[in-house]
Amino acid sequence: MTTMNNLRVGTAFDAHQIEAGKPCWIAGILHDGVDGCEGHSDGDVVAHAVVDAVLSAAGLGDLGSFVGVGRPAYDGVSGVALLRELRELIDAKGAVILNVSAQLIAQSPKMGPVRAAAEAALTEALGAPVSVSATTTDHMGFTGSGQGRAAIATALVDVGGV
Amino acid sequence: MTTMNNLRVGTAFDAHQIEAGKPCWIAGILHDGVDGCEGHSDGDVVAHAVVDAVLSAAGLGDLGSFVGVGRPAYDGVSGVALLRELRELIDAKGAVILNVSAQLIAQSPKMGPVRAAAEAALTEALGAPVSVSATTTDHMGFTGSGQGRAAIATALVDVGGV
Amino acid sequence: MTTMNNLRVGTAFDAHQIEAGKPCWIAGILHDGVDGCEGHSDGDVVAHAVVDAVLSAAGLGDLGSFVGVGRPAYDGVSGVALLRELRELIDAKGAVILNVSAQLIAQSPKMGPVRAAAEAALTEALGAPVSVSATTTDHMGFTGSGQGRAAIATALVDVGGV
Repeated sequence: MTTMNNLRVGTAFDAHQIEAGKPCWIAGILHDGVDGCEGHSDGDVVAHAVVDAVLSAAGLGDLGSFVGVGRPAYDGVSGVALLRELRELIDAKGAVILNVSAQLIAQSPKMGPVRAAAEAALTEALGAPVSVSATTTDHMGFTGSGQGRAAIATALVDVGGV
Repeated sequence: MTTMNNLRVGTAFDAHQIEAGKPCWIAGILHDGVDGCEGHSDGDVVAHAVVDAVLSAAGLGDLGSFVGVGRPAYDGVSGVALLRELRELIDAKGAVILNVSAQLIAQSPKMGPVRAAAEAALTEALGAPVSVSATTTDHMGFTGSGQGRAAIATALVDVGGV
Repeated sequence: MTTMNNLRVGTAFDAHQIEAGKPCWIAGILHDGVDGCEGHSDGDVVAHAVVDAVLSAAGLGDLGSFVGVGRPAYDGVSGVALLRELRELIDAKGAVILNVSAQLIAQSPKMGPVRAAAEAALTEALGAPVSVSATTTDHMGFTGSGQGRAAIATALVDVGGV
């Protein structure tokens, strides 16, 4: 049985450098005409923060331990694929994700026009409500200069009565 | 009826540049002798993070969609006024804010002496407990150099059984 | 009696400069061969974020008000000692910490190999589950350059029916 005492929160931050010419996958969708983020994966900084937040809430390590280091199977892996795999792990543990809130911290891309699509993509992949918002650092710091992008996420998870 | 399954978390970050000579409204109160923050609004970075965190928890978009872009009605709008408007929206949706935790990340103003007053101002405006804390980045980065201020907030919301 | 309506979240960020030659205490454990963090305390940026997040969730102020300013008793105080003291305060208030999620944001030390030990140390000291994860800023900003380290934490607390 699930009770209030099984609720757990998890929080995470992630940051990636912007790489000229790479497709820009952010929050589960492709943003045309914008440079993407560097990384072995697709560089989806929002999806990565979501994964890390859920893992931390569930007490299941972090993105590094989840994906492993240097495992070729994860080269270029999409954020949505990671969320699907995470969902299987969470289901197998008998846990339930109540929701995840994620925010992109970057000067680009503009999330307003595509926010609903991003929320739908991440929510479908994770099987739980994912809210997506966006802010800038007002042209300050490494996200403000266009050097990189960051994201934060917080998850609420029922870890079950097991 | 409200149940545990209706609980949602929301998280948000905000940052503003410091503008010489502008009144400094932070966390719902005026700080004498300190430069305020740039922005169409009063630049209250803590109040903005609170609004964004609650909106994200409730799945109601973000500050940009809430205020709209280029709506003159929001020129110079105070953080407290935004919290009052947010409270009406949350009430209308049948949701209940359990609490919000917010932290100023800045070298100034000193929040310790006015923390209780700030918590009272934000709590009264939002109609739910708002905790206010403060930290610095130890003189590092854009908040450490005095170029800007940042804030983070996390909200816990019961989105109702609707 | 505890009910859902007594649940509160708290969030916190902390940052410290790296100080050459100082022992590196991060997340409750000593990391050999790595420079530690500056500060009156042991500079355990993860433990400090945990303390601040719990205090904020419980509505009990922040690290500054908890430790006090210029109190010699806290010179060099360890993060684990702060967590033990926090646990006493929370117990005395009749509150219960459901969990805390903390993340180190730094280029060093590597947390993967010692994550389980760090989680055990913080969990034992706080008397509640503490998750520890780690990320970098991909060599960007003040944590990426090696100037400092940062951490975020989010806590879920049942503040009791008092």
